[in-house]
Amino acid sequence: MTLLEGRDLAAGIRAEAAELAAGGPPPVLAAVVATDDPATAWYLGSIAKAAASVGIAFREERLPDGDNDAVLARLDALSRDPAVDAIICMTPLPAGLSLAEAGEHIAPEKDVDGASPTSLGRLAAGRPAFAPATAQAVVELLHHSGTALSGARAVIVGRSTVVGKPLAMLLLRDDATVTVCHSRTRDLAGETSRADILVAAAGSAHLIGSGHVKPGAVVIDVGTNETASGEMVGDVDTAAVEAVASAVTPVPGGVGPVTTAVLLRNVVTAAASTP
Amino acid sequence: MTLLEGRDLAAGIRAEAAELAAGGPPPVLAAVVATDDPATAWYLGSIAKAAASVGIAFREERLPDGDNDAVLARLDALSRDPAVDAIICMTPLPAGLSLAEAGEHIAPEKDVDGASPTSLGRLAAGRPAFAPATAQAVVELLHHSGTALSGARAVIVGRSTVVGKPLAMLLLRDDATVTVCHSRTRDLAGETSRADILVAAAGSAHLIGSGHVKPGAVVIDVGTNETASGEMVGDVDTAAVEAVASAVTPVPGGVGPVTTAVLLRNVVTAAASTP
Repeated sequence: MTLLEGRDLAAGIRAEAAELAAGGPPPVLAAVVATDDPATAWYLGSIAKAAASVGIAFREERLPDGDNDAVLARLDALSRDPAVDAIICMTPLPAGLSLAEAGEHIAPEKDVDGASPTSLGRLAAGRPAFAPATAQAVVELLHHSGTALSGARAVIVGRSTVVGKPLAMLLLRDDATVTVCHSRTRDLAGETSRADILVAAAGSAHLIGSGHVKPGAVVIDVGTNETASGEMVGDVDTAAVEAVASAVTPVPGGVGPVTTAVLLRNVVTAAASTP
Repeated sequence: MTLLEGRDLAAGIRAEAAELAAGGPPPVLAAVVATDDPATAWYLGSIAKAAASVGIAFREERLPDGDNDAVLARLDALSRDPAVDAIICMTPLPAGLSLAEAGEHIAPEKDVDGASPTSLGRLAAGRPAFAPATAQAVVELLHHSGTALSGARAVIVGRSTVVGKPLAMLLLRDDATVTVCHSRTRDLAGETSRADILVAAAGSAHLIGSGHVKPGAVVIDVGTNETASGEMVGDVDTAAVEAVASAVTPVPGGVGPVTTAVLLRNVVTAAASTP
């Protein structure tokens, strides 16, 4: 059993981004934040730190919680601002504002976390677009681990707009046969235990146990769930699955660091393609 | 075994559209055509006739084959033209121009056949959008036949941008567990014979035989393939599958008429939502 750690891959992607960024003025990433959520603050801090290490200028655009129009107006303004190369919109958003609706106000060429429906549609249509960094990170980890995707049976648990659906599009592009399961799936273990590649992105702590995994499968855990004791655990019961799978990503230290690195590489790419 | 014919459903949808259209000025549908393909000419004729029966004004916008820029410029102009409510772009397009690229030039609010990547992304993100009429027609046929979708296992054969992928998004929205198969799928019969709902949209004559179908499954045939003798046949070998399935759509007379009706209803809806 291989533990598919993300740190080395993430370091490689960050180095690639830093090299790309080195030639010109620092790429500028703006993050729109309308929440006091501590998990968001922690994530923002880690992005800011990683951005600095790669040579990206990070701007936090803080807005009052509860003011949806202010969020949309700020996204519009940043989309027009020639000094800004890349935009991310942090969640949770104020009540009544979905990330997809907010994403409509992010210019696709600056949409480095694939929040815009236009980005998602372009991805699905095989047109150039930024994928959500988490979905892209899953694919990068699979490529990095040497997992064959063409003709493989991939099962995704979770149909979210930020992970499940764009990941389905990415895996189809790589010629996998793709199944998307979710809370209404009747026989979840029956579906997942057919998977050569199993991606858990349901947001449900330890949903996936040994009975869900085909012997030899590659298991990617996108979940980040906080337990009552404050511990962060994935959607996969890694200890149980290790005996069955050929490879599993840990949580933390698997998909997470790769996601941040992919996001930064997207920022540098966005800056490089600005006229 | 039920033969799921589309004509009655199509008539109902057209009547709905005609009623909606009756109040105001005729909705205007513009079709951009840059091909002399006889199948396209036939389809255009049938749309024009059906449009007239519903009270829609149909405008054919013919362009020389081989001039991609002219196609894109015309789509841009029609998107801006307040006299035009709805736009479709006929295929085949000139070499080097994909429908997705052309679709980028159709305003989403006029994109009644869901050709724009923005429409596809909005569909995937659960935002208001027109789905490609064929994908929507499949869902209408399933609803009309009383097929339960929630928790059902749906298998789609074909991953095209115009049918397979948007249909996957529509069926996920209806709570089905969705698998997308394609030419690289290793064990096609193994995948399809697990399906409660099987949709064939591969563009391969009689690809699906009795060995591909689970007893009692509902089979929807999106294929329209011309045989050497000029006959139109679907992706499903209907005669063989009838003995196994609980319901099958015929070709012609199944998905096709519903697709045209859905398209016309979309035109009327687009006109009704124009300010």
